[in-house]
Amino acid sequence: MILCDIGNSRMHFFDGGTIKHLSYEEGIAIYGEMQVFYICVSDRAQAMIAQSAPAWVDLSKYRVLKTAYRGLGIDREAACLGIGDGIVIDAGSAITVDVMENGIHRGGWIWPGIRAMLKAYEAVSPKLSYPLNPNVALDQLPMETQDAISFGLLAPIQAVIERFRNGKGVVVTGGDAKIVAQLLPDAQIDETLVFKGMKQMLKDVEC
Amino acid sequence: MILCDIGNSRMHFFDGGTIKHLSYEEGIAIYGEMQVFYICVSDRAQAMIAQSAPAWVDLSKYRVLKTAYRGLGIDREAACLGIGDGIVIDAGSAITVDVMENGIHRGGWIWPGIRAMLKAYEAVSPKLSYPLNPNVALDQLPMETQDAISFGLLAPIQAVIERFRNGKGVVVTGGDAKIVAQLLPDAQIDETLVFKGMKQMLKDVEC
Repeated sequence: MILCDIGNSRMHFFDGGTIKHLSYEEGIAIYGEMQVFYICVSDRAQAMIAQSAPAWVDLSKYRVLKTAYRGLGIDREAACLGIGDGIVIDAGSAITVDVMENGIHRGGWIWPGIRAMLKAYEAVSPKLSYPLNPNVALDQLPMETQDAISFGLLAPIQAVIERFRNGKGVVVTGGDAKIVAQLLPDAQIDETLVFKGMKQMLKDVEC
Repeated sequence: MILCDIGNSRMHFFDGGTIKHLSYEEGIAIYGEMQVFYICVSDRAQAMIAQSAPAWVDLSKYRVLKTAYRGLGIDREAACLGIGDGIVIDAGSAITVDVMENGIHRGGWIWPGIRAMLKAYEAVSPKLSYPLNPNVALDQLPMETQDAISFGLLAPIQAVIERFRNGKGVVVTGGDAKIVAQLLPDAQIDETLVFKGMKQMLKDVEC
């Protein structure tokens, strides 16, 4: 079975082995003729699929997550379905944080992703254009600009998640999973989390 | 005595009474012939002053704050000089947070301002383009997109500052002072904080 998680810039394919990260064009050129089960947050990719990959099956029709949240993105829903209990973090172009409790979604919040945050600093002033220092100390006050920015970016992730963690486990997925996971004691990285959730959608549909 | 705090977009004049917020062009047209003591973070404004306001005195020559921080902006330095002890927050195009202890600057960090943060969300996806809900609850999990964004923007300010507050007082200045102050118990708003610091610079120079 081929699964595909389509984000705002790329398609991520999973056949049970490795994950392939492809552009929309590459993804459709390689997999367009096959049966692919997918979720998609991009209107552009959705239009390309309608035109060039008619056998692909959109799993977003099958919303199975138990939640009172209005307007939850299908990618967040899939990540939540990937675990039954704990904090789910998807650290990509956005960083989404969701809380699951005994199979029920209790709510969550959104941050711009690390790249978007660094661009936001740069947009405020060219004097704030720096790469991230992922190893900045978060238990002491920054003493220069790059650290002041890196701390400003990372300390919130640690502080707000710890405030809402309540002893729960944390699973992190997405391109910046490593940077985020190292901020949180005992956080697990799982690059296949969204695909696990997609399998859950398929299973619930089939039952 | 006329004081002027020059930010990345406007000039803020203070004559001991009210504060006037003017464009660079307006400020120089009105005050260009007078003696004005100023601090400035804008290269463009600095060039305009050199050309059209020769009597203005740049207080950034007088760096008097006791700190080991490298590269502290002159506006942050002035705000810190405005208090002897406590947390200083300047919530404008950036949000800077600095810790003062018995007249000594102990360090601080930087966030993009509220407007810049909302733009960062919008840049990630048009689906994340929302105005801020300044009254979003920060003690419970958001259940829809606008709250998820507003929480993502405001919860860090509360959580990280509380973590480093250690019982200290908090003074907030800048255009978004009201929004930030309401997140922090017993925070004071002081729109003249930077000007108090500038007077301190002048006093230390004169001694």
